[in-house]
Amino acid sequence: MLEALKEQVLRANLDLVKYGVVIFTWGNVSALDRETGLVVIKPSGVDYSVMKAEDMVVVDIDGNRVEGNLNPSTDLPTHLEIYKAYPEVGGVVHTHSAHATAWAQAGRGIPFYGTTHADYFYGEIPCTRELRREEVETDYEKNTGLVIVETIGDREPLAMPGALVKSHGVFSWGKDAANAVHNAVVMEYVAKMATEAEAVNPGIHSAPDYLLEKHYQRKHGKNAYYGQGK
Amino acid sequence: MLEALKEQVLRANLDLVKYGVVIFTWGNVSALDRETGLVVIKPSGVDYSVMKAEDMVVVDIDGNRVEGNLNPSTDLPTHLEIYKAYPEVGGVVHTHSAHATAWAQAGRGIPFYGTTHADYFYGEIPCTRELRREEVETDYEKNTGLVIVETIGDREPLAMPGALVKSHGVFSWGKDAANAVHNAVVMEYVAKMATEAEAVNPGIHSAPDYLLEKHYQRKHGKNAYYGQGK
Amino acid sequence: MLEALKEQVLRANLDLVKYGVVIFTWGNVSALDRETGLVVIKPSGVDYSVMKAEDMVVVDIDGNRVEGNLNPSTDLPTHLEIYKAYPEVGGVVHTHSAHATAWAQAGRGIPFYGTTHADYFYGEIPCTRELRREEVETDYEKNTGLVIVETIGDREPLAMPGALVKSHGVFSWGKDAANAVHNAVVMEYVAKMATEAEAVNPGIHSAPDYLLEKHYQRKHGKNAYYGQGK
Amino acid sequence: MLEALKEQVLRANLDLVKYGVVIFTWGNVSALDRETGLVVIKPSGVDYSVMKAEDMVVVDIDGNRVEGNLNPSTDLPTHLEIYKAYPEVGGVVHTHSAHATAWAQAGRGIPFYGTTHADYFYGEIPCTRELRREEVETDYEKNTGLVIVETIGDREPLAMPGALVKSHGVFSWGKDAANAVHNAVVMEYVAKMATEAEAVNPGIHSAPDYLLEKHYQRKHGKNAYYGQGK
Repeated sequence: MLEALKEQVLRANLDLVKYGVVIFTWGNVSALDRETGLVVIKPSGVDYSVMKAEDMVVVDIDGNRVEGNLNPSTDLPTHLEIYKAYPEVGGVVHTHSAHATAWAQAGRGIPFYGTTHADYFYGEIPCTRELRREEVETDYEKNTGLVIVETIGDREPLAMPGALVKSHGVFSWGKDAANAVHNAVVMEYVAKMATEAEAVNPGIHSAPDYLLEKHYQRKHGKNAYYGQGK
Repeated sequence: MLEALKEQVLRANLDLVKYGVVIFTWGNVSALDRETGLVVIKPSGVDYSVMKAEDMVVVDIDGNRVEGNLNPSTDLPTHLEIYKAYPEVGGVVHTHSAHATAWAQAGRGIPFYGTTHADYFYGEIPCTRELRREEVETDYEKNTGLVIVETIGDREPLAMPGALVKSHGVFSWGKDAANAVHNAVVMEYVAKMATEAEAVNPGIHSAPDYLLEKHYQRKHGKNAYYGQGK
Repeated sequence: MLEALKEQVLRANLDLVKYGVVIFTWGNVSALDRETGLVVIKPSGVDYSVMKAEDMVVVDIDGNRVEGNLNPSTDLPTHLEIYKAYPEVGGVVHTHSAHATAWAQAGRGIPFYGTTHADYFYGEIPCTRELRREEVETDYEKNTGLVIVETIGDREPLAMPGALVKSHGVFSWGKDAANAVHNAVVMEYVAKMATEAEAVNPGIHSAPDYLLEKHYQRKHGKNAYYGQGK
Repeated sequence: MLEALKEQVLRANLDLVKYGVVIFTWGNVSALDRETGLVVIKPSGVDYSVMKAEDMVVVDIDGNRVEGNLNPSTDLPTHLEIYKAYPEVGGVVHTHSAHATAWAQAGRGIPFYGTTHADYFYGEIPCTRELRREEVETDYEKNTGLVIVETIGDREPLAMPGALVKSHGVFSWGKDAANAVHNAVVMEYVAKMATEAEAVNPGIHSAPDYLLEKHYQRKHGKNAYYGQGK
């Protein structure tokens, strides 16, 4: 079942390697099938070089395995909380990409310093609070999803399609798996530039709000004029 | 029409990827046909991996589409202002290359720290002022071109073939598309070295003017002796 | 003899190049054959591009050559001290990978800043003290092994499968050669992120112990639930 | 004439690209034929991707072209001063490799921070003083060679096979072209690690002299025991 979606999820996982945001098995992508409400996700700890579409695991929204013999990614419960909270989300990604994860380890959101950022993220990319002991010891992966949702707050999830999890790494999302991967790559790229921008100018400020507005809207707003239209 | 120039513009766009200054669709190259005054530019938001020469868009100097079904790059009006201001320019490039864009986000020009820089740029590579709200809200891309021209001022455009746009990224130019790409790659390289040079020596000063003069002139002056002559 | 193990050791050495933790001949991997107590190690100063499985050198635990015409890696005595101290170790790796070696040169252990680290290393990755003059002048490579063992102290060696040697570089180990390589790559990756995390937040603290516990145990503890089980 | 040496020089030039220390035409390698005293050097400004062995230029020790139609590298006079000063040198390299050039721009020698450095360079890699106006305006390339020789002073040239030229870049040398390239790559690598080591520990000191002695001598001394012997 869901063979086309499995193929998309496989492809999206391999793209994490292609774009240099994952080494070994350190990342995972899932996608939601809107019709059935089922989620397709990478199996846990399987090497990207041997992974096939049929290895993808199908689970329901509560995480029960519906198809596949392999264990789903350990991070599945985090993905599920994101799908539950945001009906508009069709794909979720987790990485430990080096630059963005450095910011997560530093416990800082990535400030809005320029248009590369504004083309995808409508404001500072937030970093969650540290999870508490009890949140880590019990239902850790689910609580990771909950703290992401708490951190996004009332932001529009497709206008802020990612967050850093404190002391951990990157979660991103999008309308589908490919879009979520795209956003994970952008987070890594803007994190790298933000680090260097601060080194070059320790007194740096956020870029102006009207520039954020302009760039985000020319690409995503109702009068968007970037690309080839619908 | 302009098939050879389209081929050059395609090639120049692909070179942005080859030299690592662009990921996804984050860059664009155009070229001017001096005979007709027409400009060939990359279409907006088309993936580099599927882009073909015939996808290049032909526009007149006011931006009216003369040939092609695709929308031109969103940044076209910026390119056009550069062509209008500098008759000697035959190619324009825009990138968000990471190191140079970090300097643009930091709002600093790239100081002249060494001969790598002096071989191509005759002095500090300037960074524009921040665009004002009204310049962003109306005719943003055209105003980006105007602020570049304002910033270059009375510098010789082929002796200062690029500028950083504050909170945005890199624009470069040259006698043709390939030369403009070359200058974009140099900007990225010197930006990277400038960041590290400042880290290694926070009290660093610009290199001496006579070194700038020597390197720039041995390559570009009327008695140039670098390369194989004309 | 030990043809399969030689093949593994060759493969592991080549993986050092593949993962970017070694250039030229700057690294070496060995593996222990538990049945015979013999060690298979890379020959000294042989180029990775021409190295073959049959070039691997077989030595006994005292370093006497049992098979092969080439000299074993100069670092062999260091490897042997690690095998002698830790019966559970089946593979040892040495690299000068750039980021981790920078920390070794700085004389600092790599602090526990996040889950990437905790998935493999149960606490700060320690850096040895500087070797004393007499330890360098006599039996240098053996003393390098001894200072590693001194530094690991009463830590469980497979829970802290690596150390930085002050002013030198990286040693890592694992249950076999491939696992030791894996740990060497992780050390490089977490070193890189730790440098950037400190740059982004100079006041950074270690991540909480309960997060270390959780991540290490979910992957390596007796109730581990990462991967596809045994 | 000197066909084998031309092939070596071509190969060495291409290795600069392979090892990532050169982009475009920003580097050059030469080699000395001891029998004839002639020097083979890369032509000026020729693209690496089209360069052939027969394009290499043969000059005498005063720089007069003996064979070839192309202009020799502009940096030829610098190479010649190095050959004149050091009879034991058989190959010279010039690069603008990014990390080492950052140190040259910063005007600092690369301190001895670890064994990677000591395996090739017997002490801090020095940076020249800034050339004076008159040294730049007249016989610039020859004066670059002279300031290198002045800076090396009474060091043994094969024990300090490279120097940074202030505000410029890297020159390295060795017993032949391949060896000179090797040393250029090492300079880039140790420069990168030195930058990060200082970031991680601003109070860092040089590594101990006895470690320098040990590593340099185990590889290059008369009782060297690294590699496979002569």
